[in-house]
Amino acid sequence: MGRIMVRRQVTRVSVGGRSASRSDVLAAEEPLEIRVGGRQLAVTMRTPGHDVELAAGFLVSEGVVAHAGDVAAARHCAGIDGENTYNVLDVTLGPGIAAPAPELSRSLYTTSSCGVCGKASIEAVETVSHFDVAGDPATLDLAALVGYPDLLRAEQSVFDKTGGLHAAALFAPDGSLVVAREDVGRHNAVDKVIGHALLAGLLPLRGHTLVVSSRASFELVQKATMAGIPIFAAVSAPSSLAADLAEDRGITLVGFLRGESLVVYAHGERLVDSTAPALVAAP
Amino acid sequence: MGRIMVRRQVTRVSVGGRSASRSDVLAAEEPLEIRVGGRQLAVTMRTPGHDVELAAGFLVSEGVVAHAGDVAAARHCAGIDGENTYNVLDVTLGPGIAAPAPELSRSLYTTSSCGVCGKASIEAVETVSHFDVAGDPATLDLAALVGYPDLLRAEQSVFDKTGGLHAAALFAPDGSLVVAREDVGRHNAVDKVIGHALLAGLLPLRGHTLVVSSRASFELVQKATMAGIPIFAAVSAPSSLAADLAEDRGITLVGFLRGESLVVYAHGERLVDSTAPALVAAP
Repeated sequence: MGRIMVRRQVTRVSVGGRSASRSDVLAAEEPLEIRVGGRQLAVTMRTPGHDVELAAGFLVSEGVVAHAGDVAAARHCAGIDGENTYNVLDVTLGPGIAAPAPELSRSLYTTSSCGVCGKASIEAVETVSHFDVAGDPATLDLAALVGYPDLLRAEQSVFDKTGGLHAAALFAPDGSLVVAREDVGRHNAVDKVIGHALLAGLLPLRGHTLVVSSRASFELVQKATMAGIPIFAAVSAPSSLAADLAEDRGITLVGFLRGESLVVYAHGERLVDSTAPALVAAP
Repeated sequence: MGRIMVRRQVTRVSVGGRSASRSDVLAAEEPLEIRVGGRQLAVTMRTPGHDVELAAGFLVSEGVVAHAGDVAAARHCAGIDGENTYNVLDVTLGPGIAAPAPELSRSLYTTSSCGVCGKASIEAVETVSHFDVAGDPATLDLAALVGYPDLLRAEQSVFDKTGGLHAAALFAPDGSLVVAREDVGRHNAVDKVIGHALLAGLLPLRGHTLVVSSRASFELVQKATMAGIPIFAAVSAPSSLAADLAEDRGITLVGFLRGESLVVYAHGERLVDSTAPALVAAP
Protein backbone atom coordinates (compact mmCIF):
# COMPACT_ATOMS: atom_id res chain seq x y z
CA MET A 1 0.00 0.00 0.00
CA GLY A 2 2.70 2.49 1.02
CA ARG A 3 1.96 6.19 0.72
CA ILE A 4 0.62 6.03 -2.85
CA MET A 5 -2.75 4.67 -1.78
CA VAL A 6 -4.68 5.05 1.46
CA ARG A 7 -7.23 2.55 2.74
CA ARG A 8 -10.52 3.94 3.99
CA GLN A 9 -13.95 2.68 5.07
CA VAL A 10 -16.63 3.83 2.61
CA THR A 11 -20.34 3.17 2.00
CA ARG A 12 -21.65 2.14 -1.39
CA VAL A 13 -25.23 3.37 -1.85
CA SER A 14 -27.94 2.86 -4.49
CA VAL A 15 -31.30 4.59 -4.62
CA GLY A 16 -33.92 2.27 -3.19
CA GLY A 17 -31.26 -0.35 -2.56
CA ARG A 18 -29.19 -1.43 0.40
CA SER A 19 -26.11 0.48 1.45
CA ALA A 20 -22.97 -1.56 1.98
CA SER A 21 -19.95 -0.53 4.03
CA ARG A 22 -16.63 -1.74 2.71
CA SER A 23 -12.91 -1.01 2.78
CA ASP A 24 -11.72 0.94 -0.25
CA VAL A 25 -8.44 2.42 -1.46
CA LEU A 26 -8.03 6.09 -2.37
CA ALA A 27 -5.26 7.81 -4.29
CA ALA A 28 -2.99 9.48 -1.75
CA GLU A 29 -2.62 13.26 -1.82
CA GLU A 30 -0.07 15.12 0.32
CA PRO A 31 1.61 18.52 0.00
CA LEU A 32 5.21 18.62 -1.26
CA GLU A 33 7.31 21.67 -0.53
CA ILE A 34 10.05 22.07 -3.14
CA ARG A 35 13.12 23.97 -1.94
CA VAL A 36 16.17 25.01 -3.91
CA GLY A 37 19.32 25.60 -1.90
CA GLY A 38 17.26 25.60 1.30
CA ARG A 39 14.83 28.27 0.10
CA GLN A 40 11.14 27.48 -0.46
CA LEU A 41 10.15 27.69 -4.12
CA ALA A 42 6.72 26.04 -4.39
CA VAL A 43 4.19 23.82 -2.64
CA THR A 44 2.24 21.34 -4.75
CA MET A 45 -0.42 18.81 -3.77
CA ARG A 46 0.84 15.52 -5.15
CA THR A 47 0.70 11.74 -4.81
CA PRO A 48 3.79 10.76 -2.78
CA GLY A 49 6.48 8.83 -4.62
CA HIS A 50 9.06 9.82 -7.25
CA ASP A 51 9.44 13.15 -5.45
CA VAL A 52 12.95 13.75 -6.77
CA GLU A 53 11.69 13.28 -10.32
CA LEU A 54 8.77 15.60 -9.59
CA ALA A 55 11.04 18.36 -8.29
CA ALA A 56 13.51 17.91 -11.15
CA GLY A 57 10.72 18.01 -13.72
CA PHE A 58 9.20 21.08 -12.08
CA LEU A 59 12.55 22.84 -12.39
CA VAL A 60 12.77 21.85 -16.08
CA SER A 61 9.27 23.17 -16.68
CA GLU A 62 10.20 26.48 -15.08
CA GLY A 63 13.40 26.83 -17.09
CA VAL A 64 15.78 26.50 -14.13
CA VAL A 65 17.53 23.28 -15.23
CA ALA A 66 17.92 21.57 -18.62
CA HIS A 67 20.57 18.85 -18.25
CA ALA A 68 21.25 16.02 -15.81
CA GLY A 69 24.26 17.79 -14.27
CA ASP A 70 22.16 20.84 -13.43
CA VAL A 71 20.72 18.94 -10.46
CA ALA A 72 23.57 18.05 -8.12
CA ALA A 73 21.53 16.49 -5.31
CA ALA A 74 18.05 16.26 -3.84
CA ARG A 75 16.99 15.02 -0.43
CA HIS A 76 13.96 14.95 1.82
CA CYS A 77 14.57 17.16 4.79
CA ALA A 78 12.91 18.17 8.00
CA GLY A 79 10.11 20.71 8.12
CA ILE A 80 9.62 23.62 10.50
CA ASP A 81 9.73 21.66 13.75
CA GLY A 82 12.52 19.29 12.71
CA GLU A 83 10.35 16.28 11.93
CA ASN A 84 10.90 14.62 8.54
CA THR A 85 7.46 14.13 7.01
CA TYR A 86 8.99 13.27 3.60
CA ASN A 87 6.98 16.19 2.27
CA VAL A 88 9.88 18.65 2.02
CA LEU A 89 12.47 18.14 -0.73
CA ASP A 90 15.57 20.30 -1.01
CA VAL A 91 17.31 20.44 -4.39
CA THR A 92 20.97 21.43 -4.71
CA LEU A 93 21.74 22.88 -8.13
CA GLY A 94 24.92 22.02 -10.05
CA PRO A 95 27.88 24.40 -10.43
CA GLY A 96 27.02 27.59 -12.28
CA ILE A 97 23.24 27.04 -12.29
CA ALA A 98 21.46 30.14 -11.06
CA ALA A 99 18.82 29.72 -8.36
CA PRO A 100 15.32 30.69 -9.51
CA ALA A 101 13.66 33.90 -8.42
CA PRO A 102 11.16 33.28 -5.60
CA GLU A 103 8.26 34.48 -7.70
CA LEU A 104 9.28 32.56 -10.79
CA SER A 105 6.01 30.85 -11.64
CA ARG A 106 3.91 33.92 -11.20
CA SER A 107 6.24 36.20 -13.15
CA LEU A 108 6.44 33.78 -16.07
CA TYR A 109 3.09 34.95 -17.39
CA THR A 110 3.42 38.65 -16.71
CA THR A 111 6.87 39.80 -17.82
CA SER A 112 6.09 40.31 -21.46
CA SER A 113 5.26 43.57 -23.15
CA CYS A 114 1.48 43.35 -23.47
CA GLY A 115 0.82 42.84 -19.80
CA VAL A 116 -1.26 39.71 -19.36
CA CYS A 117 -2.60 37.87 -22.38
CA GLY A 118 -2.19 34.58 -24.20
CA LYS A 119 0.41 36.07 -26.54
CA ALA A 120 2.47 37.24 -23.58
CA SER A 121 2.30 33.78 -22.04
CA ILE A 122 3.58 32.22 -25.25
CA GLU A 123 6.38 34.76 -25.55
CA ALA A 124 7.38 34.09 -21.95
CA VAL A 125 7.82 30.38 -22.70
CA GLU A 126 9.94 31.25 -25.73
CA THR A 127 12.16 33.42 -23.55
CA VAL A 128 13.01 30.69 -21.07
CA SER A 129 13.20 27.72 -23.46
CA HIS A 130 16.58 25.97 -23.61
CA PHE A 131 15.74 23.78 -26.61
CA ASP A 132 14.49 24.37 -30.14
CA VAL A 133 11.72 21.85 -30.82
CA ALA A 134 10.69 23.33 -34.18
CA GLY A 135 13.78 21.93 -35.92
CA ASP A 136 13.19 18.35 -34.74
CA PRO A 137 12.79 16.25 -37.94
CA ALA A 138 11.11 13.36 -36.07
CA THR A 139 8.26 11.46 -37.69
CA LEU A 140 5.79 9.11 -36.00
CA ASP A 141 3.70 6.37 -37.55
CA LEU A 142 -0.02 6.68 -36.81
CA ALA A 143 -0.21 2.94 -36.14
CA ALA A 144 2.27 3.37 -33.27
CA LEU A 145 0.62 6.52 -31.94
CA VAL A 146 -2.87 5.04 -31.63
CA GLY A 147 -1.39 2.19 -29.58
CA TYR A 148 0.18 4.49 -26.97
CA PRO A 149 -2.96 5.08 -24.82
CA ASP A 150 -3.30 1.34 -24.21
CA LEU A 151 0.38 1.10 -23.25
CA LEU A 152 -0.11 4.02 -20.85
CA ARG A 153 -3.27 2.46 -19.44
CA ALA A 154 -1.40 -0.78 -18.75
CA GLU A 155 1.00 1.15 -16.51
CA GLN A 156 -1.74 2.77 -14.41
CA SER A 157 -1.65 0.41 -11.47
CA VAL A 158 -2.93 2.93 -8.93
CA PHE A 159 -5.73 4.17 -11.20
CA ASP A 160 -6.95 0.59 -11.50
CA LYS A 161 -7.44 0.47 -7.74
CA THR A 162 -8.62 4.02 -7.05
CA GLY A 163 -9.99 5.53 -10.28
CA GLY A 164 -8.45 8.74 -9.05
CA LEU A 165 -5.22 9.44 -10.88
CA HIS A 166 -3.96 11.20 -13.95
CA ALA A 167 -1.14 9.61 -15.91
CA ALA A 168 1.59 10.63 -18.34
CA ALA A 169 3.99 8.51 -20.38
CA LEU A 170 7.04 9.16 -22.53
CA PHE A 171 7.73 7.10 -25.65
CA ALA A 172 11.10 6.86 -27.41
CA PRO A 173 11.53 7.40 -31.16
CA ASP A 174 11.46 3.60 -31.64
CA GLY A 175 8.05 3.41 -29.96
CA SER A 176 9.24 1.88 -26.69
CA LEU A 177 7.93 3.14 -23.36
CA VAL A 178 10.55 5.17 -21.47
CA VAL A 179 8.59 5.90 -18.31
CA ALA A 180 5.00 6.30 -17.07
CA ARG A 181 3.92 8.08 -13.91
CA GLU A 182 0.63 8.68 -12.05
CA ASP A 183 -0.44 11.55 -9.81
CA VAL A 184 -3.57 13.25 -8.45
CA GLY A 185 -2.41 16.32 -10.42
CA ARG A 186 -1.90 16.02 -14.15
CA HIS A 187 0.87 18.65 -14.10
CA ASN A 188 2.66 16.55 -11.48
CA ALA A 189 2.41 13.38 -13.57
CA VAL A 190 4.07 15.22 -16.48
CA ASP A 191 6.73 16.75 -14.21
CA LYS A 192 7.61 13.28 -12.86
CA VAL A 193 8.03 11.92 -16.40
CA ILE A 194 10.18 14.87 -17.48
CA GLY A 195 12.20 14.78 -14.27
CA HIS A 196 12.89 11.07 -14.81
CA ALA A 197 14.16 11.84 -18.30
CA LEU A 198 16.31 14.72 -17.07
CA LEU A 199 17.98 12.59 -14.40
CA ALA A 200 18.57 9.83 -16.99
CA GLY A 201 20.41 12.33 -19.19
CA LEU A 202 17.83 12.20 -21.97
CA LEU A 203 17.13 15.93 -22.42
CA PRO A 204 16.43 17.36 -24.93
CA LEU A 205 13.91 14.63 -25.73
CA ARG A 206 14.34 14.71 -29.52
CA GLY A 207 12.00 12.41 -31.39
CA HIS A 208 10.03 11.52 -28.24
CA THR A 209 6.26 11.57 -27.73
CA LEU A 210 4.50 12.61 -24.52
CA VAL A 211 1.06 11.08 -23.92
CA VAL A 212 -1.34 12.28 -21.20
CA SER A 213 -4.54 10.64 -19.98
CA SER A 214 -6.24 14.02 -19.66
CA ARG A 215 -6.85 17.21 -21.59
CA ALA A 216 -4.01 19.36 -22.96
CA SER A 217 -3.71 22.73 -21.24
CA PHE A 218 -1.26 25.55 -21.92
CA GLU A 219 0.74 24.49 -18.88
CA LEU A 220 1.21 20.91 -20.08
CA VAL A 221 2.34 21.94 -23.58
CA GLN A 222 4.69 24.41 -21.91
CA LYS A 223 6.27 21.51 -20.00
CA ALA A 224 6.77 19.53 -23.23
CA THR A 225 8.36 22.59 -24.83
CA MET A 226 10.80 23.06 -21.97
CA ALA A 227 11.91 19.41 -22.21
CA GLY A 228 12.35 19.52 -26.00
CA ILE A 229 9.55 17.03 -26.74
CA PRO A 230 8.34 17.39 -30.37
CA ILE A 231 5.08 15.40 -30.17
CA PHE A 232 2.35 15.84 -27.54
CA ALA A 233 -0.78 13.66 -27.56
CA ALA A 234 -3.77 13.94 -25.22
CA VAL A 235 -6.61 11.47 -24.80
CA SER A 236 -9.00 14.40 -24.38
CA ALA A 237 -9.39 17.95 -25.74
CA PRO A 238 -6.79 20.72 -25.87
CA SER A 239 -7.46 24.34 -24.94
CA SER A 240 -7.09 27.18 -27.43
CA LEU A 241 -3.91 28.46 -25.79
CA ALA A 242 -2.38 24.96 -25.75
CA ALA A 243 -2.91 24.79 -29.52
CA ASP A 244 -1.51 28.31 -29.99
CA LEU A 245 1.61 27.47 -27.99
CA ALA A 246 2.17 24.21 -29.89
CA GLU A 247 1.76 26.04 -33.18
CA ASP A 248 4.21 28.75 -32.14
CA ARG A 249 6.87 26.44 -30.69
CA GLY A 250 6.75 23.82 -33.45
CA ILE A 251 5.17 21.04 -31.41
CA THR A 252 2.90 18.43 -32.97
CA LEU A 253 -0.30 18.57 -30.90
CA VAL A 254 -2.78 15.68 -31.03
CA GLY A 255 -6.07 15.49 -29.11
CA PHE A 256 -8.94 13.02 -28.74
CA LEU A 257 -6.49 10.13 -29.25
CA ARG A 258 -9.02 7.32 -28.97
CA GLY A 259 -9.30 4.02 -30.77
CA GLU A 260 -7.96 4.29 -34.30
CA SER A 261 -8.52 8.02 -34.74
CA LEU A 262 -7.26 11.37 -33.50
CA VAL A 263 -7.43 15.10 -34.16
CA VAL A 264 -4.36 17.14 -35.16
CA TYR A 265 -4.26 20.70 -33.82
CA ALA A 266 -0.74 21.77 -34.81
CA HIS A 267 2.20 20.57 -36.91
CA GLY A 268 0.70 17.38 -38.31
CA GLU A 269 3.66 17.12 -40.71
CA ARG A 270 5.44 14.78 -38.27
CA LEU A 271 2.69 12.17 -38.51
CA VAL A 272 2.94 9.51 -41.22
CA ASP A 273 0.61 6.66 -42.08
CA SER A 274 2.60 3.62 -43.23
CA THR A 275 -0.64 2.11 -44.51
CA ALA A 276 -1.32 5.15 -46.73
CA PRO A 277 0.87 6.78 -49.38
CA ALA A 278 0.92 10.43 -48.27
CA LEU A 279 1.91 12.42 -45.24
CA VAL A 280 -0.90 13.61 -43.05
CA ALA A 281 -1.69 17.17 -44.00
CA ALA A 282 -0.91 19.82 -41.46
CA PRO A 283 -3.99 21.72 -40.32
CA MET B 1 -18.40 32.70 -30.20
CA GLY B 2 -16.95 35.44 -27.98
CA ARG B 3 -13.92 34.68 -25.87
CA ILE B 4 -15.24 31.44 -24.35
CA MET B 5 -14.56 29.39 -27.45
CA VAL B 6 -11.98 29.82 -30.20
CA ARG B 7 -12.41 28.58 -33.76
CA ARG B 8 -9.46 26.72 -35.28
CA GLN B 9 -8.67 24.66 -38.36
CA VAL B 10 -7.91 21.03 -37.38
CA THR B 11 -7.35 17.71 -39.15
CA ARG B 12 -9.30 14.59 -38.27
CA VAL B 13 -7.18 11.47 -38.95
CA SER B 14 -7.84 7.72 -38.89
CA VAL B 15 -5.26 4.98 -39.34
CA GLY B 16 -5.42 3.77 -42.92
CA GLY B 17 -8.19 6.25 -43.62
CA ARG B 18 -8.41 9.66 -45.19
CA SER B 19 -7.59 12.76 -43.22
CA ALA B 20 -10.11 15.56 -43.29
CA SER B 21 -9.45 19.21 -42.53
CA ARG B 22 -12.27 21.04 -40.83
CA SER B 23 -13.08 24.04 -38.66
CA ASP B 24 -13.42 23.18 -34.98
CA VAL B 25 -14.06 25.07 -31.74
CA LEU B 26 -11.74 24.85 -28.75
CA ALA B 27 -12.33 25.92 -25.15
CA ALA B 28 -10.63 29.28 -24.67
CA GLU B 29 -7.81 29.55 -22.15
CA GLU B 30 -6.27 32.90 -21.16
CA PRO B 31 -4.36 34.09 -18.09
CA LEU B 32 -6.22 36.19 -15.51
CA GLU B 33 -4.24 38.33 -13.12
CA ILE B 34 -6.19 38.93 -9.90
CA ARG B 35 -5.26 42.11 -8.07
CA VAL B 36 -6.51 43.36 -4.72
CA GLY B 37 -6.27 47.10 -4.14
CA GLY B 38 -3.97 47.39 -7.15
CA ARG B 39 -1.50 44.76 -5.93
CA GLN B 40 -1.02 41.47 -7.82
CA LEU B 41 -2.24 38.48 -5.85
CA ALA B 42 -2.38 35.56 -8.29
CA VAL B 43 -2.37 34.59 -11.96
CA THR B 44 -4.61 31.73 -13.05
CA MET B 45 -5.15 30.18 -16.48
CA ARG B 46 -8.90 30.31 -17.00
CA THR B 47 -11.68 30.37 -19.58
CA PRO B 48 -12.66 34.05 -20.00
CA GLY B 49 -16.07 35.05 -18.69
CA HIS B 50 -17.50 35.51 -15.21
CA ASP B 51 -14.15 36.95 -14.14
CA VAL B 52 -15.61 38.94 -11.26
CA GLU B 53 -17.21 35.78 -9.90
CA LEU B 54 -13.91 33.92 -10.34
CA ALA B 55 -11.96 36.55 -8.43
CA ALA B 56 -14.61 36.76 -5.69
CA GLY B 57 -14.70 32.97 -5.34
CA PHE B 58 -10.92 32.80 -5.23
CA LEU B 59 -10.92 35.30 -2.37
CA VAL B 60 -13.57 33.24 -0.53
CA SER B 61 -11.47 30.08 -1.01
CA GLU B 62 -8.45 31.84 0.43
CA GLY B 63 -10.34 33.17 3.44
CA VAL B 64 -10.07 36.85 2.49
CA VAL B 65 -13.81 37.54 2.08
CA ALA B 66 -16.91 35.77 3.38
CA HIS B 67 -19.90 38.07 2.76
CA ALA B 68 -21.24 40.07 -0.18
CA GLY B 69 -20.23 43.41 1.35
CA ASP B 70 -16.61 42.28 1.67
CA VAL B 71 -16.18 42.92 -2.07
CA ALA B 72 -16.84 46.62 -2.74
CA ALA B 73 -15.97 46.68 -6.44
CA ALA B 74 -14.14 44.81 -9.16
CA ARG B 75 -13.10 46.02 -12.59
CA HIS B 76 -10.95 44.96 -15.51
CA CYS B 77 -8.02 47.29 -15.77
CA ALA B 78 -5.06 47.94 -18.00
CA GLY B 79 -1.93 45.81 -17.86
CA ILE B 80 1.70 46.87 -17.83
CA ASP B 81 1.66 48.92 -21.04
CA GLY B 82 -1.76 50.47 -20.49
CA GLU B 83 -3.72 48.24 -22.85
CA ASN B 84 -6.87 46.62 -21.44
CA THR B 85 -6.69 42.94 -22.41
CA TYR B 86 -9.58 42.08 -20.05
CA ASN B 87 -7.14 39.71 -18.37
CA VAL B 88 -6.38 41.88 -15.34
CA LEU B 89 -9.07 42.28 -12.68
CA ASP B 90 -8.65 44.58 -9.70
CA VAL B 91 -10.79 43.93 -6.64
CA THR B 92 -11.55 46.64 -4.08
CA LEU B 93 -12.31 45.19 -0.67
CA GLY B 94 -15.09 46.52 1.54
CA PRO B 95 -14.52 48.69 4.65
CA GLY B 96 -12.51 46.93 7.34
CA ILE B 97 -11.56 43.91 5.21
CA ALA B 98 -7.83 43.27 5.46
CA ALA B 99 -5.88 42.80 2.23
CA PRO B 100 -4.36 39.34 1.89
CA ALA B 101 -0.68 38.69 2.36
CA PRO B 102 1.13 38.44 -1.00
CA GLU B 103 2.17 34.85 -0.34
CA LEU B 104 -1.23 33.78 0.95
CA SER B 105 -1.77 30.65 -1.13
CA ARG B 106 1.66 29.27 -0.53
CA SER B 107 1.65 29.95 3.19
CA LEU B 108 -1.74 28.29 3.66
CA TYR B 109 -0.17 24.86 3.62
CA THR B 110 2.96 25.57 5.61
CA THR B 111 2.05 27.67 8.62
CA SER B 112 0.98 24.86 10.91
CA SER B 113 3.06 23.18 13.56
CA CYS B 114 4.17 20.00 11.82
CA GLY B 115 5.78 21.73 8.86
CA VAL B 116 4.30 20.28 5.70
CA CYS B 117 1.92 17.36 5.87
CA GLY B 118 -1.72 16.53 5.22
CA LYS B 119 -2.63 17.19 8.86
CA ALA B 120 -1.06 20.65 8.67
CA SER B 121 -3.00 21.40 5.48
CA ILE B 122 -6.27 20.46 7.21
CA GLU B 123 -5.43 22.54 10.28
CA ALA B 124 -4.63 25.51 8.05
CA VAL B 125 -8.10 25.35 6.49
CA GLU B 126 -9.66 25.21 9.95
CA THR B 127 -7.73 28.32 10.96
CA VAL B 128 -9.01 30.48 8.10
CA SER B 129 -12.60 29.14 7.93
CA HIS B 130 -15.31 31.72 8.58
CA PHE B 131 -18.17 29.20 8.75
CA ASP B 132 -18.92 26.06 10.74
CA VAL B 133 -20.21 23.43 8.34
CA ALA B 134 -20.25 20.58 10.88
CA GLY B 135 -23.36 21.93 12.61
CA ASP B 136 -25.42 22.15 9.42
CA PRO B 137 -28.46 19.88 9.96
CA ALA B 138 -29.23 19.65 6.21
CA THR B 139 -30.44 16.39 4.72
CA LEU B 140 -30.55 15.42 1.05
CA ASP B 141 -32.69 12.80 -0.63
CA LEU B 142 -30.71 10.31 -2.71
CA ALA B 143 -33.30 10.52 -5.48
CA ALA B 144 -32.50 14.23 -5.87
CA LEU B 145 -28.74 13.77 -5.58
CA VAL B 146 -28.46 11.18 -8.35
CA GLY B 147 -30.30 13.55 -10.67
CA TYR B 148 -27.82 16.42 -10.18
CA PRO B 149 -25.15 15.25 -12.68
CA ASP B 150 -27.70 15.31 -15.51
CA LEU B 151 -28.81 18.81 -14.50
CA LEU B 152 -25.16 19.90 -14.48
CA ARG B 153 -24.54 18.25 -17.83
CA ALA B 154 -27.49 20.12 -19.35
CA GLU B 155 -25.78 23.41 -18.44
CA GLN B 156 -22.47 22.51 -20.09
CA SER B 157 -22.97 24.35 -23.36
CA VAL B 158 -19.28 24.89 -24.04
CA PHE B 159 -18.34 21.30 -23.19
CA ASP B 160 -20.85 20.12 -25.76
CA LYS B 161 -18.97 21.99 -28.45
CA THR B 162 -15.38 21.50 -27.31
CA GLY B 163 -15.21 18.48 -25.00
CA GLY B 164 -12.66 20.51 -23.09
CA LEU B 165 -14.17 21.96 -19.95
CA HIS B 166 -14.73 21.11 -16.33
CA ALA B 167 -17.97 22.16 -14.70
CA ALA B 168 -19.36 22.84 -11.25
CA ALA B 169 -22.90 23.50 -10.08
CA LEU B 170 -24.56 24.61 -6.88
CA PHE B 171 -27.95 23.24 -5.82
CA ALA B 172 -30.25 24.85 -3.24
CA PRO B 173 -31.78 22.93 -0.32
CA ASP B 174 -35.01 22.54 -2.37
CA GLY B 175 -33.06 20.83 -5.18
CA SER B 176 -33.17 23.76 -7.61
CA LEU B 177 -30.08 24.76 -9.58
CA VAL B 178 -28.56 28.01 -8.28
CA VAL B 179 -25.73 28.37 -10.77
CA ALA B 180 -23.47 26.28 -13.03
CA ARG B 181 -20.13 27.36 -14.48
CA GLU B 182 -17.54 25.87 -16.86
CA ASP B 183 -13.78 26.42 -17.06
CA VAL B 184 -10.63 24.77 -18.39
CA GLY B 185 -9.55 24.53 -14.73
CA ARG B 186 -11.77 22.67 -12.30
CA HIS B 187 -10.68 24.93 -9.41
CA ASN B 188 -11.78 27.93 -11.50
CA ALA B 189 -15.20 26.41 -12.20
CA VAL B 190 -15.75 26.00 -8.46
CA ASP B 191 -14.46 29.50 -7.69
CA LYS B 192 -16.89 30.98 -10.24
CA VAL B 193 -19.81 29.16 -8.61
CA ILE B 194 -18.80 30.25 -5.11
CA GLY B 195 -18.10 33.81 -6.25
CA HIS B 196 -21.55 33.99 -7.82
CA ALA B 197 -23.08 32.87 -4.52
CA LEU B 198 -21.04 35.37 -2.53
CA LEU B 199 -22.08 38.30 -4.73
CA ALA B 200 -25.72 37.15 -4.47
CA GLY B 201 -25.48 37.33 -0.68
CA LEU B 202 -25.94 33.57 -0.23
CA LEU B 203 -22.93 32.77 1.98
CA PRO B 204 -22.72 30.69 4.11
CA LEU B 205 -24.33 28.17 1.76
CA ARG B 206 -26.22 26.23 4.41
CA GLY B 207 -28.07 23.19 3.10
CA HIS B 208 -26.54 23.55 -0.39
CA THR B 209 -24.85 20.87 -2.48
CA LEU B 210 -21.82 21.43 -4.73
CA VAL B 211 -21.45 19.03 -7.67
CA VAL B 212 -18.30 18.81 -9.83
CA SER B 213 -17.82 16.99 -13.13
CA SER B 214 -14.35 15.89 -12.07
CA ARG B 215 -12.52 14.24 -9.22
CA ALA B 216 -12.52 15.67 -5.69
CA SER B 217 -9.15 17.00 -4.59
CA PHE B 218 -8.15 18.56 -1.28
CA GLU B 219 -8.29 21.98 -2.89
CA LEU B 220 -11.89 21.59 -4.08
CA VAL B 221 -13.15 20.37 -0.70
CA GLN B 222 -11.29 23.29 0.87
CA LYS B 223 -13.26 25.68 -1.34
CA ALA B 224 -16.56 24.08 -0.26
CA THR B 225 -15.50 24.41 3.37
CA MET B 226 -14.67 28.08 3.00
CA ALA B 227 -18.11 28.79 1.47
CA GLY B 228 -19.98 26.84 4.16
CA ILE B 229 -21.27 24.13 1.78
CA PRO B 230 -22.27 20.97 3.72
CA ILE B 231 -22.53 18.47 0.83
CA PHE B 232 -19.90 17.91 -1.88
CA ALA B 233 -20.47 15.39 -4.69
CA ALA B 234 -18.01 14.45 -7.43
CA VAL B 235 -18.69 12.43 -10.54
CA SER B 236 -15.27 10.81 -10.19
CA ALA B 237 -12.97 9.70 -7.35
CA PRO B 238 -11.79 11.72 -4.35
CA SER B 239 -8.23 11.79 -3.06
CA SER B 240 -7.29 10.60 0.43
CA LEU B 241 -6.70 14.14 1.68
CA ALA B 242 -10.02 15.34 0.26
CA ALA B 243 -11.77 12.63 2.32
CA ASP B 244 -9.71 13.48 5.41
CA LEU B 245 -10.59 17.17 5.13
CA ALA B 246 -14.30 16.42 4.61
CA GLU B 247 -14.28 14.11 7.63
CA ASP B 248 -12.54 16.73 9.77
CA ARG B 249 -14.68 19.71 8.72
CA GLY B 250 -18.03 17.90 8.82
CA ILE B 251 -18.68 17.86 5.08
CA THR B 252 -20.64 15.07 3.41
CA LEU B 253 -18.33 13.79 0.65
CA VAL B 254 -19.76 11.72 -2.21
CA GLY B 255 -17.76 10.26 -5.12
CA PHE B 256 -18.48 8.19 -8.23
CA LEU B 257 -21.92 9.80 -8.50
CA ARG B 258 -23.08 7.93 -11.58
CA GLY B 259 -26.45 6.58 -12.60
CA GLU B 260 -28.42 5.49 -9.54
CA SER B 261 -25.46 4.84 -7.26
CA LEU B 262 -22.68 6.63 -5.41
CA VAL B 263 -19.98 6.11 -2.80
CA VAL B 264 -19.99 7.97 0.54
CA TYR B 265 -16.55 8.90 1.89
CA ALA B 266 -17.50 11.09 4.85
CA HIS B 267 -20.57 12.14 6.87
CA GLY B 268 -23.21 10.05 5.10
CA GLU B 269 -25.66 10.95 7.89
CA ARG B 270 -27.01 13.82 5.77
CA LEU B 271 -28.18 11.45 3.01
CA VAL B 272 -31.67 10.00 3.24
CA ASP B 273 -33.48 7.61 0.95
CA SER B 274 -37.18 8.46 0.77
CA THR B 275 -37.77 5.09 -0.88
CA ALA B 276 -36.19 3.20 2.03
CA PRO B 277 -36.95 3.37 5.74
CA ALA B 278 -33.55 4.10 7.28
CA LEU B 279 -30.88 6.77 7.02
CA VAL B 280 -27.84 5.86 4.99
CA ALA B 281 -25.18 4.67 7.40
CA ALA B 282 -22.15 6.90 7.79
CA PRO B 283 -18.95 5.14 6.79
